[in-house]
Amino acid sequence: MKIRVGIIGSTGYAGAEIVRLLLQHPEAEIVWYGSRSYVDQNYADVYRNMFELVDAACMNDNMEELSERADVIFTATPQGLCASLINEKILERAKIIDLSADFRLKRVDVYEKWYHRTHEAPGYLPEAVYGLCEINRADIAKARIVANPGCYTTTSILTLYPLVAEGLIDPSSIIIDAKSGTSGAGRSAKLPNLFCEVNESIKPYGVASHRHTPEIEEQLSYAAGMDYQAGESILINFTPHLVPMNRGILATCYASLTEGADAQKIREAYEKYYKEEYFIRFLGKDSFPETRWVEGSNFVDIGYTVDMRTNRVIAAGALDNLVKGAAGQAVQNMNLLFGLPENTGLKLVPVFP
Amino acid sequence: MKIRVGIIGSTGYAGAEIVRLLLQHPEAEIVWYGSRSYVDQNYADVYRNMFELVDAACMNDNMEELSERADVIFTATPQGLCASLINEKILERAKIIDLSADFRLKRVDVYEKWYHRTHEAPGYLPEAVYGLCEINRADIAKARIVANPGCYTTTSILTLYPLVAEGLIDPSSIIIDAKSGTSGAGRSAKLPNLFCEVNESIKPYGVASHRHTPEIEEQLSYAAGMDYQAGESILINFTPHLVPMNRGILATCYASLTEGADAQKIREAYEKYYKEEYFIRFLGKDSFPETRWVEGSNFVDIGYTVDMRTNRVIAAGALDNLVKGAAGQAVQNMNLLFGLPENTGLKLVPVFP
Amino acid sequence: MKIRVGIIGSTGYAGAEIVRLLLQHPEAEIVWYGSRSYVDQNYADVYRNMFELVDAACMNDNMEELSERADVIFTATPQGLCASLINEKILERAKIIDLSADFRLKRVDVYEKWYHRTHEAPGYLPEAVYGLCEINRADIAKARIVANPGCYTTTSILTLYPLVAEGLIDPSSIIIDAKSGTSGAGRSAKLPNLFCEVNESIKPYGVASHRHTPEIEEQLSYAAGMDYQAGESILINFTPHLVPMNRGILATCYASLTEGADAQKIREAYEKYYKEEYFIRFLGKDSFPETRWVEGSNFVDIGYTVDMRTNRVIAAGALDNLVKGAAGQAVQNMNLLFGLPENTGLKLVPVFP
Amino acid sequence: MKIRVGIIGSTGYAGAEIVRLLLQHPEAEIVWYGSRSYVDQNYADVYRNMFELVDAACMNDNMEELSERADVIFTATPQGLCASLINEKILERAKIIDLSADFRLKRVDVYEKWYHRTHEAPGYLPEAVYGLCEINRADIAKARIVANPGCYTTTSILTLYPLVAEGLIDPSSIIIDAKSGTSGAGRSAKLPNLFCEVNESIKPYGVASHRHTPEIEEQLSYAAGMDYQAGESILINFTPHLVPMNRGILATCYASLTEGADAQKIREAYEKYYKEEYFIRFLGKDSFPETRWVEGSNFVDIGYTVDMRTNRVIAAGALDNLVKGAAGQAVQNMNLLFGLPENTGLKLVPVFP
Repeated sequence: MKIRVGIIGSTGYAGAEIVRLLLQHPEAEIVWYGSRSYVDQNYADVYRNMFELVDAACMNDNMEELSERADVIFTATPQGLCASLINEKILERAKIIDLSADFRLKRVDVYEKWYHRTHEAPGYLPEAVYGLCEINRADIAKARIVANPGCYTTTSILTLYPLVAEGLIDPSSIIIDAKSGTSGAGRSAKLPNLFCEVNESIKPYGVASHRHTPEIEEQLSYAAGMDYQAGESILINFTPHLVPMNRGILATCYASLTEGADAQKIREAYEKYYKEEYFIRFLGKDSFPETRWVEGSNFVDIGYTVDMRTNRVIAAGALDNLVKGAAGQAVQNMNLLFGLPENTGLKLVPVFP
Repeated sequence: MKIRVGIIGSTGYAGAEIVRLLLQHPEAEIVWYGSRSYVDQNYADVYRNMFELVDAACMNDNMEELSERADVIFTATPQGLCASLINEKILERAKIIDLSADFRLKRVDVYEKWYHRTHEAPGYLPEAVYGLCEINRADIAKARIVANPGCYTTTSILTLYPLVAEGLIDPSSIIIDAKSGTSGAGRSAKLPNLFCEVNESIKPYGVASHRHTPEIEEQLSYAAGMDYQAGESILINFTPHLVPMNRGILATCYASLTEGADAQKIREAYEKYYKEEYFIRFLGKDSFPETRWVEGSNFVDIGYTVDMRTNRVIAAGALDNLVKGAAGQAVQNMNLLFGLPENTGLKLVPVFP
Repeated sequence: MKIRVGIIGSTGYAGAEIVRLLLQHPEAEIVWYGSRSYVDQNYADVYRNMFELVDAACMNDNMEELSERADVIFTATPQGLCASLINEKILERAKIIDLSADFRLKRVDVYEKWYHRTHEAPGYLPEAVYGLCEINRADIAKARIVANPGCYTTTSILTLYPLVAEGLIDPSSIIIDAKSGTSGAGRSAKLPNLFCEVNESIKPYGVASHRHTPEIEEQLSYAAGMDYQAGESILINFTPHLVPMNRGILATCYASLTEGADAQKIREAYEKYYKEEYFIRFLGKDSFPETRWVEGSNFVDIGYTVDMRTNRVIAAGALDNLVKGAAGQAVQNMNLLFGLPENTGLKLVPVFP
Repeated sequence: MKIRVGIIGSTGYAGAEIVRLLLQHPEAEIVWYGSRSYVDQNYADVYRNMFELVDAACMNDNMEELSERADVIFTATPQGLCASLINEKILERAKIIDLSADFRLKRVDVYEKWYHRTHEAPGYLPEAVYGLCEINRADIAKARIVANPGCYTTTSILTLYPLVAEGLIDPSSIIIDAKSGTSGAGRSAKLPNLFCEVNESIKPYGVASHRHTPEIEEQLSYAAGMDYQAGESILINFTPHLVPMNRGILATCYASLTEGADAQKIREAYEKYYKEEYFIRFLGKDSFPETRWVEGSNFVDIGYTVDMRTNRVIAAGALDNLVKGAAGQAVQNMNLLFGLPENTGLKLVPVFP
């Protein structure tokens, strides 16, 4: 019998990508297309690519009712919604994979500071597992609540994790300059996201204040062996930029090498952590990722070089923000939760051009 | 045992799309990545999206040798190449699916006039089957040579076929104004295809002289029951335009209604021909296709309206030029040739955004 | 002393383009930046390209007050606004150049049918002059109200005018397939205009129902010498398409040649009407316009060919929808109204790439 | 009498932009459209935006002959050409504004290391003036050879100059992550610059090896008061990225604050250096530039913030790579050379959208 899936927020771009992936997943079926904005409308009228592929109307976001019908619930919703609805009754019936930030940060004070809102379910933070599959695989498999990582954060953390974990870079020197396609901004009708406003331009935004900053810091602090809960933390600079393209994230990361670190050790670190990973494609030294090579797939491509003049490593990671940066990783988490091979339904070949 | 596939011209955009589709096809395996331009280079170095997915070097276009190893050969090559290489020995061993125009036109004089070249294998024209699956399904299944239709032509013919076949429009009034993404121009390094030349612009080209014109005329003449070989033919106007996007073709078609024709009869004609077709999605009256809804898939979306003021029907079809307009239809033809369900490996959900 | 200009609707794309053009106009100065949506906000905060170039706050749309301060008022506003505000007091003080459709159509019934609204100032229709400068130059110079033409209509009419006027084409055979950049959709925050919805796609819209249809029909009817007011009219098919680019309109026009018409006579017709026109660049036979070559300028490029197989002419025109299709033509009209050389401030060289 | 201008390399994107700007310049006239690739072809056939605006055929790159006819020669050519042709006879007759890198770097060894070529005219390096107008205005006015700065370098240097000059940042901590539109790659027909290769993707390139690195280092070393000729130098990391847009450069710059530096002192530094500069628009704290706001103009927009958590400043600059990053600055230099107000012919209002 197939895994019964409910999606809250199925008409956002991330939600729609979950739909796309699950329609091609051999072990799952969608039983609930949730969308507060389009209740009772045909899903295929909201997303015409689904014409003749999805025959269902949009449902409200009643998680309790949904939990009776589904084995797993994806919440692809704005911050706060999942935390406001989650309860024990729901969790007894269904697993939750939350694509919002509600359960990503272990420290409530950090969440409330960066998200400017009160956390409505802090009691569930301890058990929630940060769903970065390549790092937390074992814990995810046993979780009830999986906090699906952000798009920028997945790219940034996977690019830097081995270097921090192996002590090859000075954590206080980390600077991440990231670039994202526009689907990351969501499907709501806002002037800054209009075609003519985005097209033919690039801009930084959320400089020194973007919410993915503490998420990256927390995970890299764990990699560095710090006691994050006790207040230890790496501090980084993270600057996102908006690029006139639909999909794709590129994170260009800079850090100073520690004593004894060099290009060879960096290569070894990447190979140690990622050699067996299906979804991470390590390009090696002097080879850099481009978002076009991962589009439509769940891959993360990573490359690097070392500048001996400045004693810095420049490493870059690229992924499709809607797949490995959102829906694909969510499905990967679902596979882990239900004991399936991790790449079930996710062996998508990148679409180019 | 899987179907063994050889691809001549695997490093063009259409060839690369065949690779993408076959990597996800359950009954086929690629045994030969042909590419005259990249002989001995790793395929995955030419198309980095295939990193860790394809482990093979590019081979020369030796069709005789290839025919010993493959059950079917796709030729995704410039006009003339397939016709110059094809022979009985090859055809005894392998089926040919030719993505060039060499075997699309039954009349040698028409080919030579529009393509400005001598046909090198006219003897094979009679047996070659025009591979428009929805129309010629039965013949394709028995063919040795399948002439895979052009991208503009697939869109145009499928949009107009039922209306011509049912006598609902005056064939002499047909005007097709088509728009294509830039991948249709191929991957060769030519100035007019540079990013800055194509971006932020739209242009007509090949006005009244584009080579897809006689291909559309021939097929629609068959639909009209004309004796095309004897010189009868519909004559149309076909104008292609270049659009600043990667993929997608839209054909906007105009024609005058015949006596007694109306919107209802047009709907019935479309339903008669396409109701059972998996890959044709008929949107109905007053609903028009957009290329974004078919991108990455093998679907053709078709809609129409009737302008009673001018007594004309305006019908439009949209498809992904690299899938249903090239590689997808080629794989669909392969499925037919080998007795597989026609949509095997082709149930691709359109990728949006 | 400079011409004092007020702009109602200065924060839409067309209004902002008027600002751009007038900042570089030697004989005009803007005295009123009207914008109902941004009252009291700094104009340069709404359009950051104007930082340090415009030092003014947005004003409400009080046309009476404005008419005391300005010699000419541009209304770059939604349909209906200009008609609802205009009165004799205003017209005694200032000229009106209306960029909406309120005064473009001479027949109230046609306006009300296509625009689905009641006309609020039909009394001013007789005196309003259709501001297609190349055709109505003399009347414009004497007008109080200039109805600035639509973007699609300017392109279409200028492309076909000489052919209709000289009787070279059958008016009942005219089909116009037009393509526009996205700035034509305006700056309001609507889902269909989001970057990810427009990018990588092309779509037809308003098929057989677009409001520019009767405007084209009326003007071409005059060209044909018809008594439009009495009910005579050319009927055409006009289909607009949305293209993923910021600026530019291309109109591809099809028509059957009349007896005796040929390529040479068509050339002569274009030369007769346009040889002396600064803003119309006639490319000749077999040369077609591309929107990139006119971007940022007030030029209209026109080319054509004749298909002798079908006895049709295919002619195409291209312009920048925000310049010659809106703001540039409005300024050209202003120049006419105030006796300036018609290209004053408008000798803009197209920006490429 | 107007300044007579010759352009060597007038058919590249930078050369064509010089043409666009000079056609609108009141004090200059182009007397020589040089283009080795298009000799004897009509310039307006190579750039159709110039149809009816330029009536001249392309000339070969005979600088000696040209120097007899021109007061100033722009060389918008590949590295090495200007150095190979320059001589005393030419310089006695005409000023040279070289848009290549030949005379930008004072140290021959640095040039030869980064550009992998022998410098053919090292004797002229001492007198050549680095044409960053806002910094070297006085020297430029007296020069015979002006080395027009690179696009990335203009952006980067202007963004960081005041901070380095005032000792507010640690020079060894500087990291510049830059993003450029595709016109920076030039108009040659290369596969990586095809529309489908660039569109819908972002990539880093030339990581730790891009040639603009030493140019930035040299100029910032002067700002820091270092004896660059003697071997002292700031070392930076500079990473360019290719963005799917035609024009625009954004440089996001990171550096650690020195003791006592803060947001207020940074503001004061920018104001001290740039308050009087027409072409530099200082946006202030927490306001960041976007390339769309400068497109088509000669402006550089600069903004910044301070991250107190990491004690770093993040500053960003944006400009149009073809204008202030190439042709516009070249014309600005011409104005300086000929005693004209610096913004003559350059008060271009940015074109948006």
